[in-house]
Amino acid sequence: MDAIITLTTDLGDKDAYVSAMKWVILGINPKATLVDICHSIEPQQVAQGAFVLSTAYRYFPAGTIHLVVIDPGVGSQRRAIILVTPSAFFVAPDNGVLSYIIEEAYESTDSFAIGDRELPPGLQAIALSNPQFWLSPVSATFHGRDIFAPVAAHLSRGIPAHELGEVIRSIVTFPISRPQIKPGGTLLSHVIHIDRFGNLITDVRANDLPKESLHIEVAGCRIEELSTSYVEGGDLVAIVGSSGYLEIAARGSSAAKLLGAKIGDEIRITGLQGNRQR
Amino acid sequence: MDAIITLTTDLGDKDAYVSAMKWVILGINPKATLVDICHSIEPQQVAQGAFVLSTAYRYFPAGTIHLVVIDPGVGSQRRAIILVTPSAFFVAPDNGVLSYIIEEAYESTDSFAIGDRELPPGLQAIALSNPQFWLSPVSATFHGRDIFAPVAAHLSRGIPAHELGEVIRSIVTFPISRPQIKPGGTLLSHVIHIDRFGNLITDVRANDLPKESLHIEVAGCRIEELSTSYVEGGDLVAIVGSSGYLEIAARGSSAAKLLGAKIGDEIRITGLQGNRQR
Amino acid sequence: MDAIITLTTDLGDKDAYVSAMKWVILGINPKATLVDICHSIEPQQVAQGAFVLSTAYRYFPAGTIHLVVIDPGVGSQRRAIILVTPSAFFVAPDNGVLSYIIEEAYESTDSFAIGDRELPPGLQAIALSNPQFWLSPVSATFHGRDIFAPVAAHLSRGIPAHELGEVIRSIVTFPISRPQIKPGGTLLSHVIHIDRFGNLITDVRANDLPKESLHIEVAGCRIEELSTSYVEGGDLVAIVGSSGYLEIAARGSSAAKLLGAKIGDEIRITGLQGNRQR
Repeated sequence: MDAIITLTTDLGDKDAYVSAMKWVILGINPKATLVDICHSIEPQQVAQGAFVLSTAYRYFPAGTIHLVVIDPGVGSQRRAIILVTPSAFFVAPDNGVLSYIIEEAYESTDSFAIGDRELPPGLQAIALSNPQFWLSPVSATFHGRDIFAPVAAHLSRGIPAHELGEVIRSIVTFPISRPQIKPGGTLLSHVIHIDRFGNLITDVRANDLPKESLHIEVAGCRIEELSTSYVEGGDLVAIVGSSGYLEIAARGSSAAKLLGAKIGDEIRITGLQGNRQR
Repeated sequence: MDAIITLTTDLGDKDAYVSAMKWVILGINPKATLVDICHSIEPQQVAQGAFVLSTAYRYFPAGTIHLVVIDPGVGSQRRAIILVTPSAFFVAPDNGVLSYIIEEAYESTDSFAIGDRELPPGLQAIALSNPQFWLSPVSATFHGRDIFAPVAAHLSRGIPAHELGEVIRSIVTFPISRPQIKPGGTLLSHVIHIDRFGNLITDVRANDLPKESLHIEVAGCRIEELSTSYVEGGDLVAIVGSSGYLEIAARGSSAAKLLGAKIGDEIRITGLQGNRQR
Repeated sequence: MDAIITLTTDLGDKDAYVSAMKWVILGINPKATLVDICHSIEPQQVAQGAFVLSTAYRYFPAGTIHLVVIDPGVGSQRRAIILVTPSAFFVAPDNGVLSYIIEEAYESTDSFAIGDRELPPGLQAIALSNPQFWLSPVSATFHGRDIFAPVAAHLSRGIPAHELGEVIRSIVTFPISRPQIKPGGTLLSHVIHIDRFGNLITDVRANDLPKESLHIEVAGCRIEELSTSYVEGGDLVAIVGSSGYLEIAARGSSAAKLLGAKIGDEIRITGLQGNRQR
């Protein structure tokens, strides 16, 4: 059984933390294929980790196990969970890091919920409670190695999720950032991620955009059209990026540096119609 | 068929971009062995990526597929190609990132060519044109995931290159930096790469060097001999490094910091004979 | 034979150095499973590499081969060795980078030795001397690729260690930092590592600590109790971390930044009894 296990963490590359998780997995299932999604999530930034995971999990083969360790509450009473979807398993702390997964299962942006959230149909969650499948002893500071990794490894060997803990009905989620429609039709959106190239990823998705031409206001600059490649248009480019979100990019440069932009910054988008109304 | 696919990109480690490519590959060929060459090429620095690739591809097993995604022109009209050599496949944008591969196939440093370049005998190039082997839809911003990765994966499963597109006769190359011989026999060379240790990698190869003793001038400092280890000689060491190029290193320190050196800086090398003539 | 080979180096991620080692291994044993422990050891910091390795090697499956390349003396007369323990192989330069492995084999903190050290019972060391198992030619600057990687790969295919060189009786070690007991019972300890989160890892292990309550003095601040999670207690937290060492952490922040602390800084620990005596 050559399962794929992905890893998304804030553990960085300075220490042996990531390899500690890998050694535990390979000790339990030497045939597992390990794929790093990202280990450079800023320390304890659950929302950033949730976003990066959301751009990655979708096309892995059915049955992939996603191990997610951004765990500021390690050692506290926060639960450790498995989320089972029709196509994948997620092993993670119950701190909202799976919010996008839940949101996308609902396929709805209308209702936000903070805190515990009932699972949509087809999804199942298990609170890990069976120490038989953990390392012993369990440290106070690194459940990634001592609980999450061995649980993922046992899952990959075919142990059913329900043997690893107890079914629960809701898990913790945080509200996903979505653009707001303002009077006059202006879309008020936010930068939710800045990527390696300094591209500003916004919370606007392709079908949120005005159907015809648009005007974008970002950090005092205006962009008057959508581009279909980074090398087309002016110095600043607005383009629907590879994860389906509107991005602001700078030709051959970093938009984040050029504009001094940061996560949470506002971006205003006006369609032709909205424009005329002003 | 357990093919090896290597990855060389400027995609960094902040996002899920690299893993996106891996998930696409593993979805098509779960048995592929993936080896990261480098993902820290500076954004869009095609020449730097070309150099790092050139130090790495040589000794991989025959049949290895090298996936190279440094792609500032993504979404524009630049072609996407497969280069087939007697020992390997390269899947990359047609933007010069394979220049060293072509140059070394010619085994000649005398003739440079800018722009499109006819392929040397034994090499074949294919322009990717068969969307049947791509993801659908193809995004505007990430052909690494949508075109290059699936093409590499299909190659690794044994699909012949010519089914993936059309044979072309030339590909884009840029001139490889080589030292110039000046009147009096001085070799004018340049720093082409600075490595993790701050070693200055020059464009001078072992057999470009004066046969007897030599004098090297770099950032106002002189080095009077070739060393055979980093710990021998003075504070500054000149040594033929692991890729066959002359390097300037600093004992237990960074030559780049010590000398304030950067890529493109000149280094002058004089042999005994040349020295006497002045 | 699907052996696991781990890699711990100071080679960073800017260059193709790490992949060079991987290509050499996969060329010799395509079935090897490669696991990165850490490549971000600061250049030439043997002690840091030794510590990170010590936190990682323990739970890999029996027979794992640990390749360790932090090698400031490459090209000099320092030896290249294999250390064989009852559960693992270590392939490394003979420069002290295996000091923790030796120390832990002795299971004693009482006797320190500098320089060459006789091996404890059950361990065997081989000085690599058989160039038949190296790349040819061997470069002056990168034995990681030319000697250590091929030797690890041949080991992973079942070549016995003694065919790769000659048995030696002692290897180089450096003294492991351990806390000192001062008059009055104060434990004088030191920061030996700062991790990705800015946690200060000390040389104090759980059973070095006073059995009852304690007082910790670090950078002019006091901590009055041991915590059992990072989110419990005050802004500064003292906790036994995942490798068994006492750590100083800052709630939701970096203790290293907050305290301006660095490796080597002193930390004083007083138990109740010691406290009363003052």
